[in-house]
Amino acid sequence: MQAMTTDEPASTVSFLQLTDLLRRIFLAHGTSAQVAQVLAENCASAQRDGSHSHGIFRIPGYLSSLASGWVDGKAVPVVEDVATAFVRVDAGNGFAQPALAAARSLLIDKARNAGIAILAIRNSHHFAALWPDVEHFAEQNLVALSMVNSMTCVVPHAARQPLFGTNPIAFAAPRAGGNPIVFDLATSAIAHGDVQIAAREGRLLPEGMGVDHAGLATRDPRAILDGGALLPFGGHKGSALSMMVELLAAGLTGGNFSFEFDWSAHPGAQTPWTGQLLIVIDPDKGSGQHFAERSEELVRQLHGAGQERLPGDRRYLERARSMAQGIPASQADLERLQGLAGK
Amino acid sequence: MQAMTTDEPASTVSFLQLTDLLRRIFLAHGTSAQVAQVLAENCASAQRDGSHSHGIFRIPGYLSSLASGWVDGKAVPVVEDVATAFVRVDAGNGFAQPALAAARSLLIDKARNAGIAILAIRNSHHFAALWPDVEHFAEQNLVALSMVNSMTCVVPHAARQPLFGTNPIAFAAPRAGGNPIVFDLATSAIAHGDVQIAAREGRLLPEGMGVDHAGLATRDPRAILDGGALLPFGGHKGSALSMMVELLAAGLTGGNFSFEFDWSAHPGAQTPWTGQLLIVIDPDKGSGQHFAERSEELVRQLHGAGQERLPGDRRYLERARSMAQGIPASQADLERLQGLAGK
Repeated sequence: MQAMTTDEPASTVSFLQLTDLLRRIFLAHGTSAQVAQVLAENCASAQRDGSHSHGIFRIPGYLSSLASGWVDGKAVPVVEDVATAFVRVDAGNGFAQPALAAARSLLIDKARNAGIAILAIRNSHHFAALWPDVEHFAEQNLVALSMVNSMTCVVPHAARQPLFGTNPIAFAAPRAGGNPIVFDLATSAIAHGDVQIAAREGRLLPEGMGVDHAGLATRDPRAILDGGALLPFGGHKGSALSMMVELLAAGLTGGNFSFEFDWSAHPGAQTPWTGQLLIVIDPDKGSGQHFAERSEELVRQLHGAGQERLPGDRRYLERARSMAQGIPASQADLERLQGLAGK
Repeated sequence: MQAMTTDEPASTVSFLQLTDLLRRIFLAHGTSAQVAQVLAENCASAQRDGSHSHGIFRIPGYLSSLASGWVDGKAVPVVEDVATAFVRVDAGNGFAQPALAAARSLLIDKARNAGIAILAIRNSHHFAALWPDVEHFAEQNLVALSMVNSMTCVVPHAARQPLFGTNPIAFAAPRAGGNPIVFDLATSAIAHGDVQIAAREGRLLPEGMGVDHAGLATRDPRAILDGGALLPFGGHKGSALSMMVELLAAGLTGGNFSFEFDWSAHPGAQTPWTGQLLIVIDPDKGSGQHFAERSEELVRQLHGAGQERLPGDRRYLERARSMAQGIPASQADLERLQGLAGK
């Protein structure tokens, strides 16, 4: 299936139109109505916010994974209330986002009552950006931290072979004077989706992003994708954080480590079959102060120190533009999506 | 007060001897018996494990801070049971380690019962390594994550002026076949203590560690200490993590941000007056599997991929050597310490 391209002359689509179009695509390719709705909103949100490596670019990967029988698009997540502050979900070999949606209200109740709560999702496929999973909690005046492991493509620091996934960490915190502070960072030196986009566009990568099949440093994205591997960001420190993501998102949840699943019997499979961890905190229990006022003070000081753009700001800007003017999308992409939706 | 040096011909001291010597030093300089015991064990552990930037090297800084009246060596921490999974402590302008010690058993009970628990320490001074604060929990088959902010010395990514502290993150997880997996990483490109040691030894630093007073890149540790600043590790990603540490260790706990305290009226003060966050998880609630077996499997695979040394391994090696052969210390250092203890 041909990858989606966005470098052609752009037309626009509204967020609701794109969500509906994506929903119909998922439905037409074997997901339940509920899964289609959750994935469509997630993917349209990424496209809306300029997270192009996790927007409609991902649709072919979703559909080929569904077609391969690797992931169950009709899975019904099973939520278990394990302890006062602990929820776990068996995603049933389905996608992680519907599993989170099924557990979200219980998780929020627990966090507000106990002060902190944890959600351990296993047997799940996460093929999206991680920031949408945490931003929602910050909008409700909660702090959220999430980690998800993926598939073997990162060489641990001082090792010879890849073992870790790109293993992102996302964090969201409310602030009084504006949108939540949200970051979503791969613990690899570069996100896998960005390597794919660079390969498609024929661009070289910066130094220090990856190695070829022989383990030698390379700037060629194709050499990385063709038997090579990524490096962790920040040397041994990023590598330690990536290891923590394996331990928390997989070891603790009961999901697969990034190196444990074998999709060779499912040609076309692209969605990592692993686990995901979320920690949600009620920050106002910490000090009796209003946390959002404190985070606003930090933002003021960051601006004063010369950091003009906070993590998440670019997405909010793109979001505002998309909501006002429509989401940019080429006519070819829109026609291809409409074709996939079966009309 | 002259800094401690360790580059002279070494004699040795036992862990118990060193702990007792340091305990007497703290007692002789105005701490309570309980604070002296906690700080002495902490500092001796760092020296025992080869964490020299947080071992006896720190004693002059502790003592000058105590002498300046900046920190209360007799503070009695006040522990509040805020919610089912939330504990907070007002350290009373004392050290963070006695505050943690006062809350530890309640925190462990909550984590085992609720599945996860959080400790928010405020009004505290942390002048030590962070790994001792988390390692203890992993020895009890719990997973622990901690963050502490420090004092303005790190320029946020793309900013002009320093704002963050070195803001370390420490993590510990049990494993079935060996010592816990523990890391402790400054979110600055280099730890402040290591800059001090390099300055003392007259060594240049690697590229990318810091800037001088004009904001220009420098490898000279003295230029960094003399009005310059450190950089975050890993560019914008390390900077985002450092911001998270400010939000969680200070914003959430009610402690000072790294830029908020003013010690100018206390010449000699060196201990950052901020806050600390700990999150403790009962990992066996995640999947019904035995977490320590899963983490052992990750270790096996890491070794198989060629990563010979795991985070923490160097410390365990130094610890074993110190416990068998004594802790290396120069005769001059030992005499100086004995002088400080008043005998």
